[in-house]
Amino acid sequence: MTSTPGVPGFLAGGLASGIKKRGAKDLALIFCPGGATVAGVFTTNRIQSPAVRLSRERATRGRARAILVNSGCANTYTGAAGEKDARSIGRYAARLLDVGEEEILQSSTGVIGSRLPLSVIRRGLPRLVDDLSPGGFADAAEAILTTDTHAKIATRLGRLPGGAVRLLGIAKGAGMVEPHMATMLVYLATNARIGAPLLRRLLRDACDTTFNSLTIDGCMSTSDTVVIMASGEGHRETLKPGSGATRRFFKMLQEVCADLATQLVSDGEGATKRVTVAVRGAHSDGDARAAAYAVANSLLVKTAIHGADPNWGRIIQALGAAPVRLAPDRISIKIGAAAILRRGRYAGAAVEARARRVMQGHAYTLLVDLGLGRGGAEVLTCDLSEAYIRINASYRT
Amino acid sequence: MTSTPGVPGFLAGGLASGIKKRGAKDLALIFCPGGATVAGVFTTNRIQSPAVRLSRERATRGRARAILVNSGCANTYTGAAGEKDARSIGRYAARLLDVGEEEILQSSTGVIGSRLPLSVIRRGLPRLVDDLSPGGFADAAEAILTTDTHAKIATRLGRLPGGAVRLLGIAKGAGMVEPHMATMLVYLATNARIGAPLLRRLLRDACDTTFNSLTIDGCMSTSDTVVIMASGEGHRETLKPGSGATRRFFKMLQEVCADLATQLVSDGEGATKRVTVAVRGAHSDGDARAAAYAVANSLLVKTAIHGADPNWGRIIQALGAAPVRLAPDRISIKIGAAAILRRGRYAGAAVEARARRVMQGHAYTLLVDLGLGRGGAEVLTCDLSEAYIRINASYRT
Repeated sequence: MTSTPGVPGFLAGGLASGIKKRGAKDLALIFCPGGATVAGVFTTNRIQSPAVRLSRERATRGRARAILVNSGCANTYTGAAGEKDARSIGRYAARLLDVGEEEILQSSTGVIGSRLPLSVIRRGLPRLVDDLSPGGFADAAEAILTTDTHAKIATRLGRLPGGAVRLLGIAKGAGMVEPHMATMLVYLATNARIGAPLLRRLLRDACDTTFNSLTIDGCMSTSDTVVIMASGEGHRETLKPGSGATRRFFKMLQEVCADLATQLVSDGEGATKRVTVAVRGAHSDGDARAAAYAVANSLLVKTAIHGADPNWGRIIQALGAAPVRLAPDRISIKIGAAAILRRGRYAGAAVEARARRVMQGHAYTLLVDLGLGRGGAEVLTCDLSEAYIRINASYRT
Repeated sequence: MTSTPGVPGFLAGGLASGIKKRGAKDLALIFCPGGATVAGVFTTNRIQSPAVRLSRERATRGRARAILVNSGCANTYTGAAGEKDARSIGRYAARLLDVGEEEILQSSTGVIGSRLPLSVIRRGLPRLVDDLSPGGFADAAEAILTTDTHAKIATRLGRLPGGAVRLLGIAKGAGMVEPHMATMLVYLATNARIGAPLLRRLLRDACDTTFNSLTIDGCMSTSDTVVIMASGEGHRETLKPGSGATRRFFKMLQEVCADLATQLVSDGEGATKRVTVAVRGAHSDGDARAAAYAVANSLLVKTAIHGADPNWGRIIQALGAAPVRLAPDRISIKIGAAAILRRGRYAGAAVEARARRVMQGHAYTLLVDLGLGRGGAEVLTCDLSEAYIRINASYRT
């Protein structure tokens, strides 16, 4: 069992219950015996797993004690039976933890359309509860993985008025959605003392610029979930809207979310490069966001990134097809520090050679200035490689 | 020189002028000395080549005599200089053909951001004009190609009142857009006698269900062009709106367009399979179209098609993320004849095995019934393979 510095008020754990073949960990539990403030952000896909529906409903209560996650089976699109299965597992976990059923949030990730193996999970749960420990987050981080190649954990420590506040997050997700294998799941734990309405607002704001600004394959999962629990343990001063302490806590939250988002994209299915697509000078922030996503999701841009080819014409094509205001002769493009296009003018072979060297690196920023206004946005993306095709074409054959 | 049955009133030809390396054909000309009715449909990308702008403007006149196309250079995003280049080439061709400059439509396909090699094209044009012949469409079809692996030609012959009418089309396009290599170009020639307003309407209707219903990589070109010219030669009865002869001509037009669309998708970059995504039972035709495109463009569906994996959960995910009305428990999915999902219920392993066998074939239909209304649409797509990544990642390295 691995161990990681914990968060006051929390126990965690993860183990192999047998949902996955080959003894991989597949059941995770985060437990806050004293109860925590909770906030969550969930997928907007109209097909949602019962776990997402239950968690969304329960998160609105503002208080919770546990998060139970299984990988290896998404229990999505399984109808009324799947809903019953999810409730039954939650009820059993509630009994073992001696908490109310409505105090448990749940997630499932894996194959869409397959039922949960109830008896397997029931056999694993008592051992999972027995093994809970303050340092068990590393095991939990491992147990929520699917096609990810490694666990993702990020922590920050802040010395706030009222005590030291730790924030820890774990995440998974190698395709933005993959019925068999992926989904983005993020769980955050902190001992900050904070009310649910403020926690909700902070989480939503932090997600906007991190998890809601990344794309691996342009697909939206049926199970995407970001949940934060705040125990208040050891933190004696409640965070108030607009205070300096809240700003510092929000900065910690943003940093942990950005750190995890970066880890997710770096571990995207088949990804070898991580690129920030930044759009400036757009007519509005909305236009900037649409333009950034158009570039970040273009197969031709993603394959050019893979091949380290400073093929700026593909960026121009993606912008031209995007639903945003454009003045073609005002567009500038910078790849790292190489300003390959300045207000519609190609900078020449020497700059192109510099751009190519930037693109041979592992991580860089692709900056598009539309030259129109003050709108800006950033989207994190990765390259599209042969390995993505192999992973997704040959999974079940 | 290859030869193909021509169309009364038309001459055509294609040759290697030297724009492309290694002696590949790169300059095509279709000429109707007596003048033809013309109609065109062009890209809606906001970044457009000067050739597209000129052709769109000239096509509105309703009459034209020639179409001049070069491959190997898109002359797109080349500013005022590129516009001047396009006009200068057109003017030179007009002089050689002894027609008005405004009677020539033009297209360019290839690298975005590079200027046309004017002197190379000027050297090639006189020879191109000298070599024009009734059977030269095969050479023209070859000269418009980029990453395509073979030329695409389709013809139909109709015995209409007033005479035999032939319709011939040539097409290219292996990525829906590829600044270096592709773009969809389609040229149709017929000897039907028909006015421009009716020809425009018929062309638009035929495009809706063919070229505007296919996707290779979800990218929209800066140069997409479909143009039809009708010489009227040997056809003595003008086609009238709503007549039986017009319906028969429209059917020929649809068939030729569908034939070329199928050839385009089959030759999509890296494509090994051609799949018709048909959506039925949608709330509206618009919903059906949005749903069909969501499925046809999903990377996860396209890789599953490549791997012959009947992974219907990926189709469900794509539908759930699409902006259309859905009732999850009413969705049915058929892969070929294998009804793998019936109103939300998975049909089991035997049907899945049948679906897998269908998917191992080269071409099939994936039918989604949303079970809500009478809206329907079809989109033609192909698989996403490692070869697509290789073609697009390593083109310039």
